[in-house]
Amino acid sequence: MTDSSGPRIYFSASISGGREDAPWYAALISALTRHGSVLTEHIGSPDLSDSGEDGPGDMEIYTRDIAWLHEADVVIAEVTTPSLGVGYEVARAAGMGKPVVCLFRPEAGRRLSAMIRGNPAMRVIEYGAADDLENVAERAMSAMSGG
Amino acid sequence: MTDSSGPRIYFSASISGGREDAPWYAALISALTRHGSVLTEHIGSPDLSDSGEDGPGDMEIYTRDIAWLHEADVVIAEVTTPSLGVGYEVARAAGMGKPVVCLFRPEAGRRLSAMIRGNPAMRVIEYGAADDLENVAERAMSAMSGG
Repeated sequence: MTDSSGPRIYFSASISGGREDAPWYAALISALTRHGSVLTEHIGSPDLSDSGEDGPGDMEIYTRDIAWLHEADVVIAEVTTPSLGVGYEVARAAGMGKPVVCLFRPEAGRRLSAMIRGNPAMRVIEYGAADDLENVAERAMSAMSGG
Repeated sequence: MTDSSGPRIYFSASISGGREDAPWYAALISALTRHGSVLTEHIGSPDLSDSGEDGPGDMEIYTRDIAWLHEADVVIAEVTTPSLGVGYEVARAAGMGKPVVCLFRPEAGRRLSAMIRGNPAMRVIEYGAADDLENVAERAMSAMSGG
């Protein structure tokens, strides 16, 4: 959490849905910490497997994550790997009136759900291996402020 | 839509997230039509691939599906295959005050997201290959009515 004076960022990404993109999550979180404090830094950890967190039970995780969503100024979701939790969180965040940006890598060969792609409340930013992630983080943050 | 006098059921299941469970969706929809009208019968179609529906664009699909969610009396989601759209829909449905039941097959070897499993607004029913789907549909419908 480098810039603790900046906005509080809820970074949402797949856990139970699969961890194959975890290195992307870690790199994006690292780039985002230059713009604000990331409440959910654990999402990028290589130690976090698809069997979830060691320790807290499901109700504790749910309660904590919803509290973090309420605290957050902005929500950035990595949506390339399909995930029930990410879909749930972006819907809740939009319902709370939070700005939501979804980051999607078309080169992974998946189709993005119409519930995200066709949704006027979601900004979608596409990126890929050729992009500098500092620049992707900057585009995400400026999309939030209407840029 | 066999029982058009019964409740309107929004059946939610993975499309873009993967269609490997499509035969389960078709069988569950068939069992549910004995209890009410299923607004989203196309979700069970073997012709529907993970590249989505032929025809309507993403905004049309989003607008139609949200209208169906508003119309629905109950929402039944098959949550075994991780899906952004399903996660999004169950969050929206719960936000609208609709009863939501999530059907999950542990034998598929996946962990169910804490956003569903730890969520007091979601009833989770586990089932598997040994279960009669007529009975699973009945359990889902009676869970809605507080049974």
